[in-house]
Amino acid sequence: MSKVLAVDLGGTKIYSALVNRSGEITSGDIRPTNAQDGYQGVVKRILASIARVNTLDEPAVGVGVAVPAYIDPQEGRILFAPNLKWQAVDLKKDLEDALGLPVWLDNDANLAALGEHRYGAGKGYHNLVYITVSTGVGGGLILDGKLYRGAFGGAGEFGHMIAAPEGPGCSCGNIGCLEGVASGCAIKREAQNLVKSGRGHHMLSLAGTIEKIDARVVGQAAAEGDLDAQEILARAGRYLGIAIASVANLLNPEVFIIGGGVACGVGKLILDPAFNEAYRRTYPPYRDSLKIVPAVLRAQTGVLGAAAYAWDQLDQIKR
Amino acid sequence: MSKVLAVDLGGTKIYSALVNRSGEITSGDIRPTNAQDGYQGVVKRILASIARVNTLDEPAVGVGVAVPAYIDPQEGRILFAPNLKWQAVDLKKDLEDALGLPVWLDNDANLAALGEHRYGAGKGYHNLVYITVSTGVGGGLILDGKLYRGAFGGAGEFGHMIAAPEGPGCSCGNIGCLEGVASGCAIKREAQNLVKSGRGHHMLSLAGTIEKIDARVVGQAAAEGDLDAQEILARAGRYLGIAIASVANLLNPEVFIIGGGVACGVGKLILDPAFNEAYRRTYPPYRDSLKIVPAVLRAQTGVLGAAAYAWDQLDQIKR
Repeated sequence: MSKVLAVDLGGTKIYSALVNRSGEITSGDIRPTNAQDGYQGVVKRILASIARVNTLDEPAVGVGVAVPAYIDPQEGRILFAPNLKWQAVDLKKDLEDALGLPVWLDNDANLAALGEHRYGAGKGYHNLVYITVSTGVGGGLILDGKLYRGAFGGAGEFGHMIAAPEGPGCSCGNIGCLEGVASGCAIKREAQNLVKSGRGHHMLSLAGTIEKIDARVVGQAAAEGDLDAQEILARAGRYLGIAIASVANLLNPEVFIIGGGVACGVGKLILDPAFNEAYRRTYPPYRDSLKIVPAVLRAQTGVLGAAAYAWDQLDQIKR
Repeated sequence: MSKVLAVDLGGTKIYSALVNRSGEITSGDIRPTNAQDGYQGVVKRILASIARVNTLDEPAVGVGVAVPAYIDPQEGRILFAPNLKWQAVDLKKDLEDALGLPVWLDNDANLAALGEHRYGAGKGYHNLVYITVSTGVGGGLILDGKLYRGAFGGAGEFGHMIAAPEGPGCSCGNIGCLEGVASGCAIKREAQNLVKSGRGHHMLSLAGTIEKIDARVVGQAAAEGDLDAQEILARAGRYLGIAIASVANLLNPEVFIIGGGVACGVGKLILDPAFNEAYRRTYPPYRDSLKIVPAVLRAQTGVLGAAAYAWDQLDQIKR
């Protein structure tokens, strides 16, 4: 049975895996990215990681790579990868030259959506919106059964939908973006501000110092019953729900799938307020079909998305 | 050269036309809907209007109908048409039985998007968002070159995106919808409220009485230089821009096309503030590709969209 190689290239880790058509991982390798070594250094580490998983008795027929980057949808060149500090590099060509196999790249949020669609919480749906809530907020869209990339490959910037028009500044320079009020960074900022104002004692005692308070600490405090922490997460969830309602009314998808470290870590404490807010703001005729579910692939989201993408591309070549 | 019949069924008017593949209208008929006569009465009027335009020397090969309704995307049955007060009627079957021709129905905003895509401001684009600003606010989406209907046929409810989370109530029962702050109804309400508060003298003198102040009066006063009226339109435009930015960041389309009576009537007075607000809130990498243009088909939007839809369906049958 043939296999594909799948690589989830992150800012901190490289995760390579050999994956069959059913999405089963038969071997895997995880190692640090060491982005500070520069592009050539990271390419070497990717190749070493691949060499480790690509066993000779069943060699892979193609390679999918999930990259935290903007990618030229026609050529597959990386235009800009902020976390890796790369600009205008041709990772597809460099890997193809080294491996002698076809390589396909796409943005990590797009491939996470594809992975959940093929192998995870989105199996069987034709229209889904995948949202990741971690340090930032991102997403990907499967519309009419296919990954939707937009005109310039940039669709799915869910984190930059306007959820709080007069709200705080966002890392992108605008104000009012969802990412500025519902990301891991926003949760951390809100918690630290609360402690500075003299409240949030439980979060402070868990973290030790104010600087160490982050979304994980807020999640732990909330799980232990701390009302301040619960309210911070609920507020983030309500903003998430506002953006979900806008998308429900615009795209009328069958399901929203929520993944990412923060959402997975705190679970219902953010998803329940998100659902309630989205429900009350969804256009009444669509309301009862609103469905928001947690992602299921977790740490495998990236590699399984990359694998699904490689399988799709191989199938297209065959046709 | 063969033709299709196209019908734009509105709450007040029926517009029927014979249309060739290039979108040229070779004969047309406009008559009142008289919705108060009930479903059978309106069907009779549609058939009479069609009989008027369907000349015997070049009989039509199919019929497209734009309906202000929710339509079952599989069966083509009308589920609910609030303006006509219809529920669960099978207009497709009733027209097919009477005409002996294949008939295809779709929602009027979807078909307006298709019409602008095929014959209007959207020619040559693959990803576009059509927005109509009239009494209400609606829209339709062309994604990857095709009309996108969503899971349950309800995509494109642009007017119910959340543009002002704590804003005024909307006709749908929710709060904060774009329609509640940027529609013809919202503009009328804002103008009447301003006059009640003792300002807006120019609008009052144009209208005669406060009850007669509507979006048309506000547009006229604004065109004549009235600052109160201009600010009302600019505010509506800014809310429109907030929702456009959200969609730009989510879907990354090539172009936004703005139609509908209010937007066409007041033009730049609403579109310029919309563009400025959308531009400053669009995710920086996409900002310089943001394009917002006026619709061009105006009164023909519905019939040309219905014609494009009939041509598409005929082409699918041939394949």
